Amino acid sequence: MRVPPGLSPQEFDRALQDCRQAVGDAWVFTSDDDLALYRDAYSPIWGQPDELLASAAIAPGSVEEIQAIVKIANSYRIPLYTISTGKDLGYGGSAPIYSESVMLDLKRMNRILEVNEERAFVVVEPGVSYFDLYRHLREKGSRLWIDCPDPGWGSLIGNAVEHGNGYTPAMFRDHFNAHCGMEIVLANGELLRTGMGAMPNSATWQDYRYNFGPYLDGIFSQSNFGIVTKMGFWLMPEPETFRSIVVSVPHYLDLAPILKLANHLEMSAIVQGETPVMSPVMAPGLKGRWGEEPIKPLDPDHAALLNNPATTHADLEKFAKDHGMPFWTINLNCYGPEGVTTAQMAYAAKKAAEIPGATIAPGPAFNFPLSDDEARKILHKACLGIPSLAIFTGEGVAGERGHLLFSVTLPKTGEAVFAAHKAFGKAFRDMGSTKRGDFFIPFDWISRSLGFATAFPITRDPVKDRKSLDTLHVLTKVAAENGWGEYRAHTAVQDQTMNAYSFNNHILRRFCETIKDAVDPNGILAAGRSGIWPRHLRAQHLQEPKI
Amino acid sequence: MRVPPGLSPQEFDRALQDCRQAVGDAWVFTSDDDLALYRDAYSPIWGQPDELLASAAIAPGSVEEIQAIVKIANSYRIPLYTISTGKDLGYGGSAPIYSESVMLDLKRMNRILEVNEERAFVVVEPGVSYFDLYRHLREKGSRLWIDCPDPGWGSLIGNAVEHGNGYTPAMFRDHFNAHCGMEIVLANGELLRTGMGAMPNSATWQDYRYNFGPYLDGIFSQSNFGIVTKMGFWLMPEPETFRSIVVSVPHYLDLAPILKLANHLEMSAIVQGETPVMSPVMAPGLKGRWGEEPIKPLDPDHAALLNNPATTHADLEKFAKDHGMPFWTINLNCYGPEGVTTAQMAYAAKKAAEIPGATIAPGPAFNFPLSDDEARKILHKACLGIPSLAIFTGEGVAGERGHLLFSVTLPKTGEAVFAAHKAFGKAFRDMGSTKRGDFFIPFDWISRSLGFATAFPITRDPVKDRKSLDTLHVLTKVAAENGWGEYRAHTAVQDQTMNAYSFNNHILRRFCETIKDAVDPNGILAAGRSGIWPRHLRAQHLQEPKI
Repeated sequence: MRVPPGLSPQEFDRALQDCRQAVGDAWVFTSDDDLALYRDAYSPIWGQPDELLASAAIAPGSVEEIQAIVKIANSYRIPLYTISTGKDLGYGGSAPIYSESVMLDLKRMNRILEVNEERAFVVVEPGVSYFDLYRHLREKGSRLWIDCPDPGWGSLIGNAVEHGNGYTPAMFRDHFNAHCGMEIVLANGELLRTGMGAMPNSATWQDYRYNFGPYLDGIFSQSNFGIVTKMGFWLMPEPETFRSIVVSVPHYLDLAPILKLANHLEMSAIVQGETPVMSPVMAPGLKGRWGEEPIKPLDPDHAALLNNPATTHADLEKFAKDHGMPFWTINLNCYGPEGVTTAQMAYAAKKAAEIPGATIAPGPAFNFPLSDDEARKILHKACLGIPSLAIFTGEGVAGERGHLLFSVTLPKTGEAVFAAHKAFGKAFRDMGSTKRGDFFIPFDWISRSLGFATAFPITRDPVKDRKSLDTLHVLTKVAAENGWGEYRAHTAVQDQTMNAYSFNNHILRRFCETIKDAVDPNGILAAGRSGIWPRHLRAQHLQEPKI
Repeated sequence: MRVPPGLSPQEFDRALQDCRQAVGDAWVFTSDDDLALYRDAYSPIWGQPDELLASAAIAPGSVEEIQAIVKIANSYRIPLYTISTGKDLGYGGSAPIYSESVMLDLKRMNRILEVNEERAFVVVEPGVSYFDLYRHLREKGSRLWIDCPDPGWGSLIGNAVEHGNGYTPAMFRDHFNAHCGMEIVLANGELLRTGMGAMPNSATWQDYRYNFGPYLDGIFSQSNFGIVTKMGFWLMPEPETFRSIVVSVPHYLDLAPILKLANHLEMSAIVQGETPVMSPVMAPGLKGRWGEEPIKPLDPDHAALLNNPATTHADLEKFAKDHGMPFWTINLNCYGPEGVTTAQMAYAAKKAAEIPGATIAPGPAFNFPLSDDEARKILHKACLGIPSLAIFTGEGVAGERGHLLFSVTLPKTGEAVFAAHKAFGKAFRDMGSTKRGDFFIPFDWISRSLGFATAFPITRDPVKDRKSLDTLHVLTKVAAENGWGEYRAHTAVQDQTMNAYSFNNHILRRFCETIKDAVDPNGILAAGRSGIWPRHLRAQHLQEPKI
């Protein structure tokens, strides 16, 4: 049996006995079989001595039970690591950051506490997944949409506190910003409600996001200052239609004007959902959001060109021209009543036509509500607020068991993407990789910034996986040198990622440590989360990786 | 000379000498004439022994000078109270909360540090007013709009950290939520940058709001945890048109369907700016946002009805019917290209027509850019992002020198307004006031909630002003009993307001105090702000007022 550092097996045993009293025998897990569920399925160090492993897991069923566990953890100095549905795959999954932590697994807390149809909000517990909420709303006959990320099995609360995103209009797509009101069990077991919920019998907990005084919610995201037990989320009323156009441009440098257009239209609320960029010539494997066209086998000349390390953007541009392909495409879309969306897309098309060489084609169009049959046929369901697991059905790489994710933010400009192509292109060449950092396709998550996201395979071959991890370290360093911050990071690189946020001698981390010491003096909550360690563990962490 | 508590005049003198060394002799103020500028012009206790007064004022010109002052304040334990432009009139103006604090006046720090036209943001210092920014953008030929509250002389940073609001689309109208990136001098003099600015050479400080790890920005709003020295704000590209309709309904209870409609349209981004509600029969004095119609002298029968304490909503409804007036009106509006706004208002009108008894009329329409002459003629300039001081040119009350503001949040539903009418109506009757709490007009600031705002006159007649203050105390209590939170409060009632946020034995305040003690252990910053007192002053405050 694994035991948290600093405790004797006997003490840990007594602590677990106390926990059983608090939550019931059935909800305290210590067997290897049970704990295997809390390994990171995509761990880059699977089966190695330093794999991040839990010593036990506890699944409380209520706020009161969490409070009881937190009190036990304080008295024995047991490190707890909270997960909601535990689906943060690619970023560390359901494993702790500090090995031998006890998992606090909140998936039993899966109640949808309130749905308000007129005021268009829900209040949920951490164990509620996008699937759960979607089904619940459909069963009730609700006309509210949800906004979900690609895998639908994740937790609304988990995704929001990780600063996750979806695909529908900007007001809803930034999941943390679309929340209103939180409930948190603090490290001392006290219950905090933020926003208007700080007032007993609040009438506006989900209607107005601030309270009087400091607005605290943000400090409970990507943090280890408390355990979030409830959150309210703003939902979107079902629109009548979805309309879109696809703008195609011939040149590499044309990314600048199409992003400028997308920015302007989105800031003006004329275009609403994410505006995905694709490049059929640079990344033919990407199906596009809607995947209407069957994927054609790659032209052998095209494949040869892409596989040739000497190929430049100019070569691809020429290939595209010769084969009647655009260099870039962008989807511009909107949600609303028929006449409005038609006018919005007509305006977007008119503006797009001002870009030299641009061609404009109608994109997917839908009228709502969809029948079940229509919904099933939609390939990129998340754009319409329909959760699915379709993202896992892609082709993948032979022998791949999973992946590590690397995600940085860039300004939403062509110039930023060109600069990133240069920097990451060089980084891959320097590493001797065949991967083309200068062929990356930017990702549009949030209205005013782009993401540059890429995945490195996890194969359970220790040498290959180590290489993936090393690559992540190198890219984090390159990103930091260029001022591009990772918005989220795999648990294996959270120390390094936080280290990159080093303005004024790491004041961000030092300030967070000051808060951590004040609100969790025994350091029982999620040690190491986002590179924030409790005082007694600080010295031994936070070194830069050797790369 | 006034001296901060705990210091001898000699010590204070030495401290001020140190401050002069740090910022220059010209920027340390101690004379009565100079300090008179830091009195609250709308103080309810003007000239009384407990009037909130500063002991000195310091106007630093740079971040480094603020850091120097903060270090001096720590070594002498001097309480500082920061203001930006000092225009928070009705909520405490430019006076401290803790008397004999030294004012830290940031109005010299008035640089507009960056304007990015394509990415549509600005970075400003605390002394930059809405007027400053508007003029700067116009002079540069920028096509970016600002969103401003009614008085244009306030600070962008000051207003945002107070959770202030304007009138244009929801994405920009909630000023704190429209910011991206902060810089803060902490109580120990260290400089913190939040969001992507926590990374040196950040490329996305104003493009992506979060950093890796805890999102801290909120805790520096309505707080005393640091001194905000820079903020980025997202701006709106100038739209091509503004279009609006006015929906009128005959019955008191018709407020419910028109708010339901406004909610639905705003959540769907079909209607964008605030949706002001008016009642020509219940509040004929309110001109409406646009004031196109000259104010007619009030019909004597109408005046008699309003002045009769026995008049009910039903009486007013009958009067309205007999005189061809609506009970309520609501403006629905949008900003965008011609074809889009026309379609949006056509849809809004179609939906409004489904409300029994509703009549729909076209509202104001504008095409942009406006000529200077056209801009001058606009009555409610803030709806078009044009700062002004027009709010101060209303009729006011004879003998009024100012006012105290009371502002609570309500759900955006008719039912909530009806309940508030009952509760506040009773409160005024119980106080023997002739003011009709049941005739209040709700205010629409933020997309999903209503404000109930009212002002009580400050006359500098101590008895009358005491009565205004007492009224504020009573209304705060009534609001708390009903779960309606004040979103912002006059410095004279901040303790009581924070006390109303009492869930779990005031955990919101106790948690804030824990942070306060950790990040400002000497308690030098803005003692008493939002009811948060440094440890050494805590016991003597926070009592409930005797009402």
